[in-house]
Amino acid sequence: MADTEAGDVPANQKVEKVLKTITNDLFAQKASSLLPQLHSWIEHPVSVITFQPDPTAFFKCKPIPTQSISQFSQTSYGKGDQVILDFGSHRVGYLSFHLGVEGVNVDAPARLRLTFGEIPYDVTENLHPCKTWISTSWLPDEIINVDWLPADVEMPRRYSFRYLKIGVLDTSPKYKVRFQDVRVRAVSAVSPHLAAAVPKLEVEDRELVDIDRISQVTLRDCMQTVFEDGPRRDRRLWLGDLRLQALANYCTFKDYDLVKRCLYLFAALPREDGSLPACVFEKPKLSPASDYIVDYDALFGPTVYDYTLASGDHETAIELWPTVLGSMKMALAHLDENGQFHSDATAAWKFLDWSDGLETDAGMHGLVLFCCKEINKLAALISKPVPFANIVSKMTAAALYFYDESRGVFVSGPTRQISWSSQAWLGLAGAMDLQSCLKAITAAMADPKAMKPLTPYAYHHVAEGLARNGGEEQCLKLMTEYWGGMVKAGADTFWECFDAEDSRKSPYGDCHNNSYCHAWSCTPSYLLRGVLKDFLAKRQTE
Amino acid sequence: MADTEAGDVPANQKVEKVLKTITNDLFAQKASSLLPQLHSWIEHPVSVITFQPDPTAFFKCKPIPTQSISQFSQTSYGKGDQVILDFGSHRVGYLSFHLGVEGVNVDAPARLRLTFGEIPYDVTENLHPCKTWISTSWLPDEIINVDWLPADVEMPRRYSFRYLKIGVLDTSPKYKVRFQDVRVRAVSAVSPHLAAAVPKLEVEDRELVDIDRISQVTLRDCMQTVFEDGPRRDRRLWLGDLRLQALANYCTFKDYDLVKRCLYLFAALPREDGSLPACVFEKPKLSPASDYIVDYDALFGPTVYDYTLASGDHETAIELWPTVLGSMKMALAHLDENGQFHSDATAAWKFLDWSDGLETDAGMHGLVLFCCKEINKLAALISKPVPFANIVSKMTAAALYFYDESRGVFVSGPTRQISWSSQAWLGLAGAMDLQSCLKAITAAMADPKAMKPLTPYAYHHVAEGLARNGGEEQCLKLMTEYWGGMVKAGADTFWECFDAEDSRKSPYGDCHNNSYCHAWSCTPSYLLRGVLKDFLAKRQTE
Repeated sequence: MADTEAGDVPANQKVEKVLKTITNDLFAQKASSLLPQLHSWIEHPVSVITFQPDPTAFFKCKPIPTQSISQFSQTSYGKGDQVILDFGSHRVGYLSFHLGVEGVNVDAPARLRLTFGEIPYDVTENLHPCKTWISTSWLPDEIINVDWLPADVEMPRRYSFRYLKIGVLDTSPKYKVRFQDVRVRAVSAVSPHLAAAVPKLEVEDRELVDIDRISQVTLRDCMQTVFEDGPRRDRRLWLGDLRLQALANYCTFKDYDLVKRCLYLFAALPREDGSLPACVFEKPKLSPASDYIVDYDALFGPTVYDYTLASGDHETAIELWPTVLGSMKMALAHLDENGQFHSDATAAWKFLDWSDGLETDAGMHGLVLFCCKEINKLAALISKPVPFANIVSKMTAAALYFYDESRGVFVSGPTRQISWSSQAWLGLAGAMDLQSCLKAITAAMADPKAMKPLTPYAYHHVAEGLARNGGEEQCLKLMTEYWGGMVKAGADTFWECFDAEDSRKSPYGDCHNNSYCHAWSCTPSYLLRGVLKDFLAKRQTE
Repeated sequence: MADTEAGDVPANQKVEKVLKTITNDLFAQKASSLLPQLHSWIEHPVSVITFQPDPTAFFKCKPIPTQSISQFSQTSYGKGDQVILDFGSHRVGYLSFHLGVEGVNVDAPARLRLTFGEIPYDVTENLHPCKTWISTSWLPDEIINVDWLPADVEMPRRYSFRYLKIGVLDTSPKYKVRFQDVRVRAVSAVSPHLAAAVPKLEVEDRELVDIDRISQVTLRDCMQTVFEDGPRRDRRLWLGDLRLQALANYCTFKDYDLVKRCLYLFAALPREDGSLPACVFEKPKLSPASDYIVDYDALFGPTVYDYTLASGDHETAIELWPTVLGSMKMALAHLDENGQFHSDATAAWKFLDWSDGLETDAGMHGLVLFCCKEINKLAALISKPVPFANIVSKMTAAALYFYDESRGVFVSGPTRQISWSSQAWLGLAGAMDLQSCLKAITAAMADPKAMKPLTPYAYHHVAEGLARNGGEEQCLKLMTEYWGGMVKAGADTFWECFDAEDSRKSPYGDCHNNSYCHAWSCTPSYLLRGVLKDFLAKRQTE
């Protein structure tokens, strides 16, 4: 998920704000007791680089190493000098360095501008002014003044970056500075040991191995004291994103406690109507964001189910069971007497994807049906009465209202919109037989007029929808095109948004405010190691 | 004193650097043991202000209060907002505030620009770009990013200011910020109690009372772990400035230990030829600056003499006696066989003042003669053999070489330059009888072609030269015009430089890099309470 603009929030936001949050202190305490001790390790830059124009590259430039780090640490820099360091891959952590001196006197402070880049544009272009409608406070640059040199400089804030641009705004005519022992204390809930212990992906396809590796780095760098949205921008826990991160985590790092902590964080903050916030703030104190999203709310139950299956921890699911039931109320309030989902039943926010003008009736119908089925399975697992058996029957029948038999696709809204997302969610819900669902998804994908996803979040559901309905090959093809496209473009971690045709694409008006290590983009590891595991194993032996 | 540019340093600087510093560890330890525990106290802003154009004001604007601080703390500020706080007078210390929030979510960091102003221009104009040849790192602004709000923000660096401009670079569309409990923890070696205990100046002239008060604030704010040059810019201990600050201190706060500490700091760092550095750095470790100034070197002895007289501490003077003798060597090396000072005898730097093109032969002759006499007095006080009796005789006689009998002034150099500084130092040295000396100073002051001083440092020596030669009334008139001119212009503390005709005057190319609380400008308290004490007492009773 990501930032939302004040203007984006539906008109009923103010009405929703009237609903009180009923904080569950016990759950908040449980979440608090699960606060992880972050692991940290030291990473050094690997070289000094410059970027040269390259029209064939996605970012229209390529890095050229110009100096080794040992040469760099012996080089002095004065007013107006600038240097770019390459840390070799994506890091999340705390920068420090020794600021050395060459000259007769240090008779003035040193003023430096440090710019932390996830992609080349961050360090090859000026970040200011930034034409974005979200906060420019996210822009990853700092100006610091160091009074007494030589000095050890420790930057107190956490940054997310591969490249570090150091600009010397001024020293004095009497001295220059040197940068020695530049390092980042990288942090994650995932230790390097644990990350290294993830079994090798047993495929021969180098591209898939790369996609899996980059997914894991993305996930690792988002796993901090919560599953963060993006370590550079937003840095918060969102419910729909949590579900995908947790699924990738079960196939890789298996950190069940961090998922459990996040489940309790949401469960600690239900509204009086049972709805869970789409996002919570950990700091400075636990509080719900003002965003409530019907689909994120409904996905809480499936997230608990996934956790219970993966961890074997039934106790938590039993304790959270009333919360799961409460979290479905808002979604179910959108069903008519036949069980058909109507987005306009309330003004509450239905998300599914950021694509502009997406009709959500069909997709939300699929999503809610999917959630009901998952929660029914959870009930069976933890010996609770199955709550949504009738609703599943009705909704399965009602799914046909969305089906256009002649075209073999699901349509949505008064314009009978065909979107990839509608097919994906009705496919994931098993609204029809496998063959029909697969055909619906592939038909929409083949239709140039169909509404495509904008975010990796929505792409994931399409990919999983394909795989779950017998379209494993198509799923792999989509992964190779989409996530593989980011790999070819030079991604160290997967991005918040990706358009192979436009390296400046941004949901926020300016790509300098994009996040290039983003939670909802880390799912290929789950697809390759979970959903497609048997398929790949079989293919490998053929 | 103040910053010097690399280019300003005489060509022999490199030769001088070859001379080693022979660190005296015992003296360094003594200095270290005298490190004061700084006093601190809390000051709050008194109002929110705006500056309105006022062509009659020195800075062409006047402050208008727009809001009380209690109203201000309830006001919310968002992207692009700006506010100026007035702390009522000059403060040196550490800023902190509570950064409060108004809005639905704090979903992004807050980015603020804080600008600390000693004078209106600092906060009414953009500081960047700054057309200065010294370091722009001194410019008093910071950009900070605060990740988690609400938060207590403590700025780690020390600032020197009366005005604080807060610019909100960004919050987010979802929240605004509030500034509550804005405060500065003001610091000084002088406690508020001690400052308040300085006896009232017994004069009726309101102007003189103001000048004395502002001198004391200037001195207090420069008295930190050393006598600083300026708490905003330079922040270092310079020898010539120390002497004047110490003299003002003996008439007010009487902090003898801080003077003693500074004497030992210099004495710890003689060059192998006996010269003392013009300036020392305390941090990160004690070290001499690369600047050696012949006149500052020679003034060490008089500074020890003043200290001994004021404190009664003979032991220190006895211990520093060899250092005193060593510190005269460089100056005396400029005398010819007749005892006449020749600046061109070495390329070493003779300062006296920043005025461009000042001929220093006459002034330096006076200064060295003055120093020899003071050191002779010190010898008598501490029962050492009087070292410079013969030299004083010779130099007194040789002073006549500089005297132009027909014009009644001292002239200097091949152009027979007449400057206020030449008269001042020969007058302070008592090179001729009182009447002739006074006539020489007043004649130069009356001569529109004579070279005027540029700095308050040089103005002080002119003023004291007048007073010491029977020109007490003229001294008061000069003080009222010069320091009184700063008072009329709105000074809270006395400035590094002042030109009543030009509020943008700067020795550094841009007044934004000037210091407006400067050590060598604090001497009126010494003149009024020391040099002119008897004269004012007599005048008061008439």
